Amino acid sequence: MAITLGPNQYGKAEVRLVTVNRAGPVHHVKDVTVSTALRGRLERTHLTGDNADVVATDTQKNTVFAFAKEQPVGEIEDFALRLGRHFVDEFSHIEQARILVDEHGWDRIAVDGTPHDHSFSRSGDERRTTAVTVAGERTWVVSGVTGLVLLKSTGSEFHGFPRDRYTTLAETNDRILATALTARWRYRSGEHDWAACCTDVRRILLETFATKHSLSLQQTLYAMGEAVLLAREEIAEIRLSLPNKHHFLVDLSPFGLENDNEVFYAADRPYGLIEGTVQRENGDPAAEDPGLAWHTLAAF
Amino acid sequence: MAITLGPNQYGKAEVRLVTVNRAGPVHHVKDVTVSTALRGRLERTHLTGDNADVVATDTQKNTVFAFAKEQPVGEIEDFALRLGRHFVDEFSHIEQARILVDEHGWDRIAVDGTPHDHSFSRSGDERRTTAVTVAGERTWVVSGVTGLVLLKSTGSEFHGFPRDRYTTLAETNDRILATALTARWRYRSGEHDWAACCTDVRRILLETFATKHSLSLQQTLYAMGEAVLLAREEIAEIRLSLPNKHHFLVDLSPFGLENDNEVFYAADRPYGLIEGTVQRENGDPAAEDPGLAWHTLAAF
Amino acid sequence: MAITLGPNQYGKAEVRLVTVNRAGPVHHVKDVTVSTALRGRLERTHLTGDNADVVATDTQKNTVFAFAKEQPVGEIEDFALRLGRHFVDEFSHIEQARILVDEHGWDRIAVDGTPHDHSFSRSGDERRTTAVTVAGERTWVVSGVTGLVLLKSTGSEFHGFPRDRYTTLAETNDRILATALTARWRYRSGEHDWAACCTDVRRILLETFATKHSLSLQQTLYAMGEAVLLAREEIAEIRLSLPNKHHFLVDLSPFGLENDNEVFYAADRPYGLIEGTVQRENGDPAAEDPGLAWHTLAAF
Amino acid sequence: MAITLGPNQYGKAEVRLVTVNRAGPVHHVKDVTVSTALRGRLERTHLTGDNADVVATDTQKNTVFAFAKEQPVGEIEDFALRLGRHFVDEFSHIEQARILVDEHGWDRIAVDGTPHDHSFSRSGDERRTTAVTVAGERTWVVSGVTGLVLLKSTGSEFHGFPRDRYTTLAETNDRILATALTARWRYRSGEHDWAACCTDVRRILLETFATKHSLSLQQTLYAMGEAVLLAREEIAEIRLSLPNKHHFLVDLSPFGLENDNEVFYAADRPYGLIEGTVQRENGDPAAEDPGLAWHTLAAF
Repeated sequence: MAITLGPNQYGKAEVRLVTVNRAGPVHHVKDVTVSTALRGRLERTHLTGDNADVVATDTQKNTVFAFAKEQPVGEIEDFALRLGRHFVDEFSHIEQARILVDEHGWDRIAVDGTPHDHSFSRSGDERRTTAVTVAGERTWVVSGVTGLVLLKSTGSEFHGFPRDRYTTLAETNDRILATALTARWRYRSGEHDWAACCTDVRRILLETFATKHSLSLQQTLYAMGEAVLLAREEIAEIRLSLPNKHHFLVDLSPFGLENDNEVFYAADRPYGLIEGTVQRENGDPAAEDPGLAWHTLAAF
Repeated sequence: MAITLGPNQYGKAEVRLVTVNRAGPVHHVKDVTVSTALRGRLERTHLTGDNADVVATDTQKNTVFAFAKEQPVGEIEDFALRLGRHFVDEFSHIEQARILVDEHGWDRIAVDGTPHDHSFSRSGDERRTTAVTVAGERTWVVSGVTGLVLLKSTGSEFHGFPRDRYTTLAETNDRILATALTARWRYRSGEHDWAACCTDVRRILLETFATKHSLSLQQTLYAMGEAVLLAREEIAEIRLSLPNKHHFLVDLSPFGLENDNEVFYAADRPYGLIEGTVQRENGDPAAEDPGLAWHTLAAF
Repeated sequence: MAITLGPNQYGKAEVRLVTVNRAGPVHHVKDVTVSTALRGRLERTHLTGDNADVVATDTQKNTVFAFAKEQPVGEIEDFALRLGRHFVDEFSHIEQARILVDEHGWDRIAVDGTPHDHSFSRSGDERRTTAVTVAGERTWVVSGVTGLVLLKSTGSEFHGFPRDRYTTLAETNDRILATALTARWRYRSGEHDWAACCTDVRRILLETFATKHSLSLQQTLYAMGEAVLLAREEIAEIRLSLPNKHHFLVDLSPFGLENDNEVFYAADRPYGLIEGTVQRENGDPAAEDPGLAWHTLAAF
Repeated sequence: MAITLGPNQYGKAEVRLVTVNRAGPVHHVKDVTVSTALRGRLERTHLTGDNADVVATDTQKNTVFAFAKEQPVGEIEDFALRLGRHFVDEFSHIEQARILVDEHGWDRIAVDGTPHDHSFSRSGDERRTTAVTVAGERTWVVSGVTGLVLLKSTGSEFHGFPRDRYTTLAETNDRILATALTARWRYRSGEHDWAACCTDVRRILLETFATKHSLSLQQTLYAMGEAVLLAREEIAEIRLSLPNKHHFLVDLSPFGLENDNEVFYAADRPYGLIEGTVQRENGDPAAEDPGLAWHTLAAF
């Protein structure tokens, strides 16, 4: 009955790094949360507690802070790639690194209509994300956005679903559609204009959500993903997670009132959860092998 | 050893109400969270379980939904006043009502640069708030904003504080100042232009935070409150709660690197917490008696 | 239009302190979260940024850690009193201190049925709390428990409430009653056996919740508070906050099934919220003047 | 540039189900959170919005509630298997189902030392979990525990790790080791005594954490997993996620105090995160093919 170590990784999670570029009077703030995870020939520490191969998670944290000084952080994808390559190159037993970076936005405060040089307000809870994997010479970049809360007050239907003995839901030709979108897209290999691409993907996701007449949240999901892939050839596939944040029409008839899609109760739980991948077809060379891109990322 | 019932209140907390104004093709969304609390001659239910005086919290919830249909919600202060007056007027044993309403913002999604008619994205976590108290014929309105996360990358000092045997903090002429502001201001009696006033107070708070060179977070707090009172005569007093969200300079010297206020660690806990009131002087008739305005509201 | 500084306080919030008593092979762990707040003649920092009167919140944090070494933490009430007195005695402009301490429980892990010397598992989310105020020579102690989640599957009714045009709730002779109790009780002046009293109050609250047949959550609240005051003469008053965590009977009739109080949906929001005080009558000398005991504590 | 639908699933998340067994005067409460996800030939809804294959998530929710009445919930693994098989058997286009169930514990309140018939207090935040996958005739069961917060005040070392230019961590022969354990173990095919096995695994995890002298959290992780596999032959593999909840020794030397591992600061972020799999060797028939067992589960 032989027992053995299987897949594993370890690192420092949620390093809260804020940098200020003070090169001129107009300051630039970068606010990111970094999580590092290393993989490799780590049997010794697991089996015997010999830590000769264990880059301390404290060292990983220090490296994040030092790297932020040695070179401007720049785009989160580039920062993650530099960190990942460093760990794999520097330590012989570390064969892979997976670096997660979330970026939190800040807007300049307007004073008399003019953006202030060094005062900011938080943009909201939406975050830009990246998950970079380095394995030897190979790298994969999966970027995304999360916390994008969206709502349509009309332009959404849901009907034609099967009815069994447990089905009570009424069909509807007009409902509120609300979600809190998480998207992750896998880039094709190579360097890309990460910032421009992210901005454009975000715009496409929002515009498609807004304009696509929806017969199901699945249809909306696919339309959003397809629009992204049609517009951005540097993206091989995109995965979307769309909770269906139910807004239930309140029954006002006991009070002698009609409710013509005007008054809703926004429910917390349970919620629908629609998750899906939109990808390039297998024959398409742009599909590329996902390799380790998604390994240990949360599903979808 | 006689025992008795002391102050008490009860109600329905966190009714999540969303309304859609569909009068034309351009929809308007109102997204609020309402909590009602009633007070009065409620000894019977406490002492004997006789509920003849207990307006069920379910009824309170229904009333919130029905009122949202009977008349447009409008400004949260007006909606809260209508609800509060209803409970006090309708039920003889209910002598006071305190209604809390938080409003969550939605922005129109831009499609090809044009705001969409019925598709929205959440503005962020900041909320506009009100806490209205009705007692017989009297009413008090305390409105506010919460979740306003602010940061200055310079323009903040802290020195000259006393040093005892437990003091290790270095004096600084340049630090990051970051906070997540909660403000509540008490209106003078009467009706006011709630929306315009709230917009203006928010602008003043932001601009003062941005432009006031800060020698302490207390000084910033007072300056923000004073600027509000100077500009808005309909406000009798303002209370501010300003957590000091510490951004610690990372010591990079072990790595042979200088850190000239460029690389920071954003800490979670502990944090400083500065709370204070800015008010009109006692002699000022505009100060007015706060009465029940703050009763059972969270401190500051 | 003269403007002035009103009530204010400042301090360090949520210092996470863990101490280990290693006097023998059997270790004892104390895990507390401490928040300090100081009040006094603090006009200078607010009005001019002169910090000569401002005990830095960093110093307050250091003091918490140092005090934990200079003398065993002991009961949280005693620790809070020592801290509060220190700040008021040590700094001439600090006139009042309010110290909050929450204690998180740890149980010993059982190994072969024997409690382990130095290995522990967290008891749950329930916390023992205290809020101590020191003002010159006076002190007030308000202790409590929070996060005590309770449920009765029967023995709870709710009927006889008034019915207006917005009332739809059915009367019931049998419902689930569930809550997440927060209690705070104010001690009479003097030193008491804090630990023994807290243990006993907790027992009384639980037993009364369990055994009191409930006609309303208000009745349960009062019965719990009354039982505490009858049993513990060192307590002057007790405030209870009882959310009514609704468990709604699921309508299974569309599936041809009866639901005889067997299958419930546990709702998140909205929830009822019942808050009340049980106290000694005014004539009773044990009632004592609450003074500053509750100042700036969250309501109820 | 052909685009296509990739892997996807959808369902109802976090159905909060509470059942009461009222067969006798002693009630039994079952409190679970159920999430269903279905997979299959779902191209039509994604590509055209034709929902003929879409079992509404509302129907999925109804099925959870109805099933809880038609037969006692029983062990969460059995309940999840019944639900999963139902969806796959009932709907021709649904080929796979993945059912997550978390169970929340309740203890009986003791009254005069006797467990009460129908009054309960929540056991804490720890939850027993299962993730069941049904694909045609095949099933996989992955069960676990989460939220098990553990601490050792001694018996933990960390040294011998490599030192590069970014390493500042001191070696230590005595530190606090604290974690919040999540474990998931994959059962071999077939029916097992789920409850007994879960209880035993939990005991083994706790006892191994307590008694294993730790040279690294990785070593502790492996020891815990190995002990489980040695004791429970029905388990094919186990995955553990162990955050290293740092407790930093406070430097009290500025105050003239020694700190002999007595006073600690419990940090929130960043934290170490150690994740690993302990499994049976490939040749071992008990290892079995994991198949879809882990598909779309959170990593580790």
